[in-house]
Amino acid sequence: MSKNFVVAVCGATGAVGQEMLKVLEQRNFPCSEIIPLASARSAGKKVSCQGQELTVRELTKDSFKGVDIALFSAGGAISKEFAPIAAASGCVVVDNSAAWRMDDECPLVVPEVNPHDLDWHKGIIANPNCSTIQMMVALKPIHDEARIKRVVVSTYQAVSGTGQKAIEELENQVRRLMSGQPVVADVYAHQIAFNCLPHIDVFQPNGYTKEEMKMVNETTKIMGDPTIKVTATCVRVPVFYGHSESVNIETEQKLSADDVRSLLAKAPGIIIEDYPEKLAYPMPINAAGEDATYVGRIREDETIDNGINMWIVSDNIRKGAALNTVQIAEVLIERDLVRVP
Amino acid sequence: MSKNFVVAVCGATGAVGQEMLKVLEQRNFPCSEIIPLASARSAGKKVSCQGQELTVRELTKDSFKGVDIALFSAGGAISKEFAPIAAASGCVVVDNSAAWRMDDECPLVVPEVNPHDLDWHKGIIANPNCSTIQMMVALKPIHDEARIKRVVVSTYQAVSGTGQKAIEELENQVRRLMSGQPVVADVYAHQIAFNCLPHIDVFQPNGYTKEEMKMVNETTKIMGDPTIKVTATCVRVPVFYGHSESVNIETEQKLSADDVRSLLAKAPGIIIEDYPEKLAYPMPINAAGEDATYVGRIREDETIDNGINMWIVSDNIRKGAALNTVQIAEVLIERDLVRVP
Repeated sequence: MSKNFVVAVCGATGAVGQEMLKVLEQRNFPCSEIIPLASARSAGKKVSCQGQELTVRELTKDSFKGVDIALFSAGGAISKEFAPIAAASGCVVVDNSAAWRMDDECPLVVPEVNPHDLDWHKGIIANPNCSTIQMMVALKPIHDEARIKRVVVSTYQAVSGTGQKAIEELENQVRRLMSGQPVVADVYAHQIAFNCLPHIDVFQPNGYTKEEMKMVNETTKIMGDPTIKVTATCVRVPVFYGHSESVNIETEQKLSADDVRSLLAKAPGIIIEDYPEKLAYPMPINAAGEDATYVGRIREDETIDNGINMWIVSDNIRKGAALNTVQIAEVLIERDLVRVP
Repeated sequence: MSKNFVVAVCGATGAVGQEMLKVLEQRNFPCSEIIPLASARSAGKKVSCQGQELTVRELTKDSFKGVDIALFSAGGAISKEFAPIAAASGCVVVDNSAAWRMDDECPLVVPEVNPHDLDWHKGIIANPNCSTIQMMVALKPIHDEARIKRVVVSTYQAVSGTGQKAIEELENQVRRLMSGQPVVADVYAHQIAFNCLPHIDVFQPNGYTKEEMKMVNETTKIMGDPTIKVTATCVRVPVFYGHSESVNIETEQKLSADDVRSLLAKAPGIIIEDYPEKLAYPMPINAAGEDATYVGRIREDETIDNGINMWIVSDNIRKGAALNTVQIAEVLIERDLVRVP
């Protein structure tokens, strides 16, 4: 890994973009140059990474000349427009938006789960949805051992998944409520402070939200197994960082709770936190700022022959977004895939 | 209903006891006298109900002489000790604690679901767990129509379910965090502000919490059907009032989402709030202070032949506790059952 790369971060001033810069620095990513890109409105702002102060440049179709790797997190519309431009100029794109995830030409990758899918990339690689990623990390070892037939998942998702403005909205609403002032909801359809919203992303004709359907559809693509059935209910909760998931699975082969603990204990990217006697279980406040996917509350579900309940928590901005994107770029380097075929 | 009754409220200064007094007033419950009872520490405090200021008396074994109906919400230990004493003195007890719920001699009643079970009461009637009650209200019409085989439920429970001190703890933690001060956790094992705790009541040897097992065991008793299988994950969220539940059910007969909506629309105690196009769905901040159980996000679950997902929200202190207790007392009066056989 002696070669260094020119890396563009597209959406560098957003919640995920900022975290990408932090992750590049923390992991000492082999950058010869880091180019922060954003909209004209943010151009000129300063960001820092790997000890340098960097000036944010405006994203244009000429931004990718000489860039080896571009990490995108500037929303679906920007990705739709600029990822093909970047790829056409020879830059490999790892895109955190939903724009390319279900495109047959684009691998959808969680490095612990399906790194091999990077082998067939054509220039654009998609980073999965945050709530899908952490579930995949925890379910892959179980699927390999016992084949997962069905997943029923309910999520408890942090506001940071919506972006910086949602973080501010929760904080502002709490401050206003605590001082007896009326609450304003701009980012969400309703007050999020001290509330739960069973509504993430837009509603689809089938009554599910887009977020729920992402968990259904992305799972089969990442696992490379169209037979895994997922049904999801996605809920926003008044938490700043860290998505939690209550996951019920049915497997083909029987696994005890201890079997699941043993499988996950040796799997990459997972920390087991399952010590009820010590009142220790995964919680978003502990996962925040960390890289791992935390799994606990592992119990056999005795309502079916081969059922398991578990509780999965991870930092949605790190493993759910910035970290997974940078990890994909690392695997591209390891496998010498930093080129557009 | 011309007769008026002497009603004791045991635990009158707690979060649920206070709400019981409010509900007795709001529903113009036929009281000739209301006797607020509490521990020695709270004796002498003033409470008000039905336009009278009342002095809280210390709960003793002599408290129930001449009392017709006693509503208990002072914790399991008090109920275990004093409910039999009350019943022995001819007073019918409706107990909100977990002490008597699974006792074969005590009916466990949700008035919309199994009012007939009051017919065989022997002096003590149990009010179910808050998270069970709202689920029963929503599931009974479905069970009657299509027989429910299996329920997978994940809860989002408000701190008021733990009591007044937990309400104060969430508020204090939020205030401290907002002013940069360290957080103290006394009531809960960990910080609840901006966090999720997959831990309600104590852990059992099987890895489930007592709260989760209440939902499993109380469901079959209330429904009068030991074949309904329930698996639960119970989670505390930073919400003051209103429990939410993500419920996945499998039925024997096929029901469409529209079938479920029609069934629930005509069922007692339910308000359907399921208009995705208007971004209208049940939320705890709207359910707080209300009597109904709100149901929305009704969708067919296509991972199984006969599956339905739904989102159920109700005020845990009202329908989940105080209101249901008073409603039981009302049915006792209607059915002329205010006597210990």
